[in-house]
Amino acid sequence: MWGGRFESEPAGAARDFTRSFPWDQRLYREDIVASQAHAAMLGARGIVSASDADALTAGLDRLLDELDDADGPDDVGDEDIHSYVERVLIERLGDPGRRLHTARSRNDQVATDMRLYVKGLTLRIGRALTDLMAALVDRAEPDTVAPGFTHLQSGQPVTLGHYLLAIQEMLSRDLDGCYQVFALADICPLGSGALAGVPYDIDREHAAHALHFSRISRNSMDAVADRDYLMALLNLGVGILLHLSRWAEDLVIWASPGYAMVDFDDAYATGSSIMPQKKNPDIAELVRGRTGTALGITTGMAATVKGVPLTYGLDLQEDKQALFRMEDLVLPTLGIMREAFATLRFDRERMAQMATAGHATATEIADYLVEQGAPFREAHEIAGRVVSAAIAAGVELHEVTDDELCAIDARLGPELRERLSAERSVARRDVPGGTAPRRVRLAVADAQGRIELERGRLRELAASGLPAALAPWE
Amino acid sequence: MWGGRFESEPAGAARDFTRSFPWDQRLYREDIVASQAHAAMLGARGIVSASDADALTAGLDRLLDELDDADGPDDVGDEDIHSYVERVLIERLGDPGRRLHTARSRNDQVATDMRLYVKGLTLRIGRALTDLMAALVDRAEPDTVAPGFTHLQSGQPVTLGHYLLAIQEMLSRDLDGCYQVFALADICPLGSGALAGVPYDIDREHAAHALHFSRISRNSMDAVADRDYLMALLNLGVGILLHLSRWAEDLVIWASPGYAMVDFDDAYATGSSIMPQKKNPDIAELVRGRTGTALGITTGMAATVKGVPLTYGLDLQEDKQALFRMEDLVLPTLGIMREAFATLRFDRERMAQMATAGHATATEIADYLVEQGAPFREAHEIAGRVVSAAIAAGVELHEVTDDELCAIDARLGPELRERLSAERSVARRDVPGGTAPRRVRLAVADAQGRIELERGRLRELAASGLPAALAPWE
Amino acid sequence: MWGGRFESEPAGAARDFTRSFPWDQRLYREDIVASQAHAAMLGARGIVSASDADALTAGLDRLLDELDDADGPDDVGDEDIHSYVERVLIERLGDPGRRLHTARSRNDQVATDMRLYVKGLTLRIGRALTDLMAALVDRAEPDTVAPGFTHLQSGQPVTLGHYLLAIQEMLSRDLDGCYQVFALADICPLGSGALAGVPYDIDREHAAHALHFSRISRNSMDAVADRDYLMALLNLGVGILLHLSRWAEDLVIWASPGYAMVDFDDAYATGSSIMPQKKNPDIAELVRGRTGTALGITTGMAATVKGVPLTYGLDLQEDKQALFRMEDLVLPTLGIMREAFATLRFDRERMAQMATAGHATATEIADYLVEQGAPFREAHEIAGRVVSAAIAAGVELHEVTDDELCAIDARLGPELRERLSAERSVARRDVPGGTAPRRVRLAVADAQGRIELERGRLRELAASGLPAALAPWE
Amino acid sequence: MWGGRFESEPAGAARDFTRSFPWDQRLYREDIVASQAHAAMLGARGIVSASDADALTAGLDRLLDELDDADGPDDVGDEDIHSYVERVLIERLGDPGRRLHTARSRNDQVATDMRLYVKGLTLRIGRALTDLMAALVDRAEPDTVAPGFTHLQSGQPVTLGHYLLAIQEMLSRDLDGCYQVFALADICPLGSGALAGVPYDIDREHAAHALHFSRISRNSMDAVADRDYLMALLNLGVGILLHLSRWAEDLVIWASPGYAMVDFDDAYATGSSIMPQKKNPDIAELVRGRTGTALGITTGMAATVKGVPLTYGLDLQEDKQALFRMEDLVLPTLGIMREAFATLRFDRERMAQMATAGHATATEIADYLVEQGAPFREAHEIAGRVVSAAIAAGVELHEVTDDELCAIDARLGPELRERLSAERSVARRDVPGGTAPRRVRLAVADAQGRIELERGRLRELAASGLPAALAPWE
Repeated sequence: MWGGRFESEPAGAARDFTRSFPWDQRLYREDIVASQAHAAMLGARGIVSASDADALTAGLDRLLDELDDADGPDDVGDEDIHSYVERVLIERLGDPGRRLHTARSRNDQVATDMRLYVKGLTLRIGRALTDLMAALVDRAEPDTVAPGFTHLQSGQPVTLGHYLLAIQEMLSRDLDGCYQVFALADICPLGSGALAGVPYDIDREHAAHALHFSRISRNSMDAVADRDYLMALLNLGVGILLHLSRWAEDLVIWASPGYAMVDFDDAYATGSSIMPQKKNPDIAELVRGRTGTALGITTGMAATVKGVPLTYGLDLQEDKQALFRMEDLVLPTLGIMREAFATLRFDRERMAQMATAGHATATEIADYLVEQGAPFREAHEIAGRVVSAAIAAGVELHEVTDDELCAIDARLGPELRERLSAERSVARRDVPGGTAPRRVRLAVADAQGRIELERGRLRELAASGLPAALAPWE
Repeated sequence: MWGGRFESEPAGAARDFTRSFPWDQRLYREDIVASQAHAAMLGARGIVSASDADALTAGLDRLLDELDDADGPDDVGDEDIHSYVERVLIERLGDPGRRLHTARSRNDQVATDMRLYVKGLTLRIGRALTDLMAALVDRAEPDTVAPGFTHLQSGQPVTLGHYLLAIQEMLSRDLDGCYQVFALADICPLGSGALAGVPYDIDREHAAHALHFSRISRNSMDAVADRDYLMALLNLGVGILLHLSRWAEDLVIWASPGYAMVDFDDAYATGSSIMPQKKNPDIAELVRGRTGTALGITTGMAATVKGVPLTYGLDLQEDKQALFRMEDLVLPTLGIMREAFATLRFDRERMAQMATAGHATATEIADYLVEQGAPFREAHEIAGRVVSAAIAAGVELHEVTDDELCAIDARLGPELRERLSAERSVARRDVPGGTAPRRVRLAVADAQGRIELERGRLRELAASGLPAALAPWE
Repeated sequence: MWGGRFESEPAGAARDFTRSFPWDQRLYREDIVASQAHAAMLGARGIVSASDADALTAGLDRLLDELDDADGPDDVGDEDIHSYVERVLIERLGDPGRRLHTARSRNDQVATDMRLYVKGLTLRIGRALTDLMAALVDRAEPDTVAPGFTHLQSGQPVTLGHYLLAIQEMLSRDLDGCYQVFALADICPLGSGALAGVPYDIDREHAAHALHFSRISRNSMDAVADRDYLMALLNLGVGILLHLSRWAEDLVIWASPGYAMVDFDDAYATGSSIMPQKKNPDIAELVRGRTGTALGITTGMAATVKGVPLTYGLDLQEDKQALFRMEDLVLPTLGIMREAFATLRFDRERMAQMATAGHATATEIADYLVEQGAPFREAHEIAGRVVSAAIAAGVELHEVTDDELCAIDARLGPELRERLSAERSVARRDVPGGTAPRRVRLAVADAQGRIELERGRLRELAASGLPAALAPWE
Repeated sequence: MWGGRFESEPAGAARDFTRSFPWDQRLYREDIVASQAHAAMLGARGIVSASDADALTAGLDRLLDELDDADGPDDVGDEDIHSYVERVLIERLGDPGRRLHTARSRNDQVATDMRLYVKGLTLRIGRALTDLMAALVDRAEPDTVAPGFTHLQSGQPVTLGHYLLAIQEMLSRDLDGCYQVFALADICPLGSGALAGVPYDIDREHAAHALHFSRISRNSMDAVADRDYLMALLNLGVGILLHLSRWAEDLVIWASPGYAMVDFDDAYATGSSIMPQKKNPDIAELVRGRTGTALGITTGMAATVKGVPLTYGLDLQEDKQALFRMEDLVLPTLGIMREAFATLRFDRERMAQMATAGHATATEIADYLVEQGAPFREAHEIAGRVVSAAIAAGVELHEVTDDELCAIDARLGPELRERLSAERSVARRDVPGGTAPRRVRLAVADAQGRIELERGRLRELAASGLPAALAPWE
């Protein structure tokens, strides 16, 4: 394709080292659709004849159908998917095929394909996020008491629903991120040529419109050098996985014998080759591991981008693997967490028991004293002494005797005791964003409404933001 | 502050290991201002008396003035800036000071302080970005010819202005990122307490409004666990530095003896202790180096966040260093690049010479043949043969003889030659986003307009988005 | 120092941006000692006069004493520690000071200083490792039963000593790493000049010998470009912290209310500003967090090194911060873990209880069946059914009735039951490297012996591998 | 394989998410060979009957032959390669197959396989390193002058051979690293069981000896948790690629039109789809890009390891991908760099021209003045003024007139001029490790000798350090 000035063919090892087809063949739909938009524009502007443009359109249509049927192209040694498509068209159409690359470079072509792919991917990720968010809200029981940890120590009791909504809230930020990455990718670089623009009377808006891009790029050098939309996608992926990894960390601990508050369904756990009793929270563990892998992909890509002078350097070819590997890390992980969570069993009794373990309602004592007029810092100190007394006696807070309470501080009356249950503790945290069942019920309804809105927004973007042939889902 | 249940003081080494004052003292203004909003709210709701609230407000005012005068607090061993402020108030005010922490935890307090700081920082970064963007646009000469590289090989000639606008375009995306990070941080967690909300009749909107937050957080557990706004800020910093590093890579190469297209002012270069002739592009080199450091900070923080179960773990305390170190990497780098660039000399003659080096206008030959009816792929092949002939003869493209041209392809007439100058090549790339001087002039005007808009937007956000006491600039 | 060809002084911001004194002043002892060796060599070879060499030696001696007394140099604006030392000598000695830099460049000087520093640092890390290893072995109780986890699920019972020896074993590999990094740094680059060697009749072996380097570098370009010894030190640091982080992860979980198997001494834990009962395993959490930070430093440095062409680029100046920050992460962490561990309380009763939780001795059933002639894979299957029966009945393995056992498999006789205690289970794992108390006792003795050997080796290296003035400890 | 206690099969998505066969099938030879050693030991100790052991040995032999013929196993849905092998044996042999896993767990099995694989891989990497080192030494011309850069500015002239030996020297440190990783992996964990050792009368030394391990692991918990040998391999890979990336950075710059000092053979370069003249240093660029990717893999794995409590967590399963991907990055890169370098053309005339560009021999002036008795610091200053004069006059150093020289400093006689050629400059740097042709010739001979020694050492390790069936090369 570029051999005119070369005296020899690439050496076999050099070809193997530099070709990207094994990876970028995943872009075949984007490459074909973008080529159609380009060919149509060339025809519309008279840069190629109408009949050549028609031949190209038809040829690309046929190829798309064939490749869809065959689940993608065969690897017969092409350098990349772009060479593949052009080669097939030349073999089939002759000169019209040889005209496809007029007023185009692989540099703007690759960027166009990648941006189309990233746009679709953000929507697919967005949908998987809403599905998982909905699954979380579905099980957000407002009245079930659970332990709330800081430093993995008993902090204060919370409700299970409140905890699950916290996870949902994290994911809702990731969903916002999807739209941002979509917008960053939603700029059409086609017409930037190799780096300087092209000397043809092209209509960049025409092609951009056909491909459902919101606008065209403003600077051709930036357009071919830029990988910000990719870095943003990678950062989005890491962000999602960081959230899932923190949740997974909880799940691994909660499923462990010291807590036994959750139990994975047998279909979502695995055993040991040697220890017959083992039931491992494999999915949650792998989520943590894959988060490390995803972080590495992103860091590695950034380290590569860092050194590339303007405009394009082949270093950037690593972007394909980074993108597709991130896709393969994020989408299945969102899916499996939804499935595994939907079938997870909660041991509510055990959760209630752990909710007050470790004197977790001691803050109530301080707040009680504040009501009696004590400054909080003093109240905290006194409550600490009650905890010490309970520890020394090996009892729970509500088991500290009246005498002992009174000895610590005269204001500590027996009516304090009724506050020390988990139920009372959570009910009293009745502020916006608080864990009180009443608040959680409101938050569930609010979340349900927002998820429905987001689903609509994603459907609309899927319909309006991409060509029909690249619809992210059926 | 939390010693009630403890039998012994922290060991010296433990205290040194865990305290964060040396870092987080940089948050003193945010901590004081947020404490004032909290105290005012407590007073307004009758949780503390009006006189206590007034005492706290006045005490915090005085402390703020003192610390501003002293350029920050002295380190006398406090655990963190929050303990420092509370300790001073208690020492000075007695019981009112002991009431400040009512209905508040360090967890929501830290998050509030950090979010306020991040909001201000994004605006300061935004301003530095617009300053550098303006400096780039100021020198974006539309008619000066320069080499355009891909793979650091001669690609096609461009104009210097086009190149500088490409850098400016990159930075404009970073500016968009500033607003996104601002928005992500613009949520008030105060009132989330330790993790579950607080059992007081607080008014979260009151405090949020006083602190100029757009809304309050929706879930208390998420509010204390969340560091997304921090990761976003770190990713923003890496993104900016990646852009600057790519530019710096160009500058180092362009300043090197093989190119000699730019010359740093003596005030922005350094020499060698042994080689008297050396004038090193130190600033550009350090920009590359600090980009690596910034990437590391971000990766390290992500690796830390990855493992923290809900809600808060002290692992997250590393966020302070990450934030402040990123600030110290990004802001000075933006500033020094603006200064160094403003005083950089371009050798326009040398740039023009390099613009056509390496047969950089060969694409013109292919495009010329396309005009004669040749399919592009064939035209490219023929043009490649012209290049081979030129290389074999050791001449420039326009020096290939008529006979040689004709021998390669009969369509290659002598009128082709006039197209092979850099000036003609750039002028012909007259498409939106292209390098033609006409387009660059338009792009400069467009960029100037957008920069002015952004400056206004930043000023407005600075005025409306933060309390006056935390104004990001005078 | 290098201003001859420059027309103007560095701009203030440029100077602030590029100077490294605030960091590299930590190298003052190395710089002075290396300068003395250089001066002595210059004198010995007659490159400077004997009296100049004497003046330099005396001047450097005095400066070293002064700086030691003052706890390091004051920052009065020097570019780096090397300029500082040379400036002071010139101010004090006049021309002899101006001769110090003969046949030397900052490039080989910096590399020499850094290598000396790294050598000392590896020994200090090595010593801290042996101290922590010894602390672990001291408490390695061979007979105390503890749970052994895989996937944070009950795996098989182990002994506490066995667990602690596992940590010790990890650290012993880090100690091996110290020697390797020491050896990598133990090559003298002095005499490599800026990059090409120097045109003086120097004696490189003389200086190397004075500085206790094992050999001189073989290639001057490599010598000034190389940062492998630094990357190795950083990787060593990350490796140590990864080990400590995994251990810390266990400690955080073991200290949590679901396990409550360990209890940090009050002096090595901190509390909450709001929750009076909280006692947080802060040190263990911070160890995890700082591991992330350390990983980031190393990744960032590698990303920087990646882009530096030969030989030296100022990008590499980031190496100082990386080195010193890693030192400040690793050494205090090793120290505090030793202290915190030495005062940690184990709840042996709770550990024993957890050791058999989750039917942790089910493997015994399979092994019992193998003794009866069952193939292991079949035995494992049958044991799994016993576990199911126990779970269904809500009992421990030894509580499954004879009838039930027999119904599952006729070979499951009542004598199986006595094998199901943790004590029997550990005692039966009596293979080299196994957890049986007998083996642990042998392993403790073996570890003690090896630690003593290592301590001797470190002492010997400290004495022979560094000049007396750079002894890593008194 | 572990289904006894499970009520349901894994869900399809869960199986897809957790299985590792697609990756770890690359370990099939190691798994089979290690299983043979285990079976032989079980037979020798009477834990299985001699006939069962024989059946297993024969069955494994046959399977190995079959899989070698078929280029590895087919994926029919097994969980991992270990399950695959055991399943096939059970299908073919019945009960003997079911006995293979006696006294073994996947935990120690996986670690054994991985260590065997890593040992072989380090030798293969070592061999590729020596091949590339030899290629460098082969072309290390001692008399060819080349520019020597620091900060990508003209530093001092060097010889091409000296430069190439610098690269070779870097790689020789990587080779040392290979032996260190080999040694770290050279410890047999078999017999550690799941985590606690096994309750059978096994002979760990027997199996270790059969597998050519140097020693057995000392602690079973550490043995199954440890991935240090993997992290070391990954760090080794990053280290190699960092070296190649720095070299590639030089190659990209040297091949660029501003330098044009090297020219890749057409077989090791690629062109542009649009720009007919382009010949891109693709291989060198990709080497830089893949270095970023490799760094990411390593960082990601470290981030994963960081969070895994003792002993094993499934997070660690990501180690397979990390290992094999690093292999696929390092080995082809070493190979292609050797090929591309062997066919690279040097433009010696251009190199000589660049060697003195930028007044690169100005240090000579300073050294000349030192000979006249000037202190170096003063001499440097004066030489800087000569450079300024040359720049002002737009001439080379040797073109500064006698009058001008004298005006700058009376000691600058005309005989200085002959020192200013690149040839004289390099010849004068005649110190150990210096660039003088005489020294480079010695260094070449020395390097050749060392490479031969290393080749012998690798051959010996390949023969003695691995079972014949796992020989790293034919």
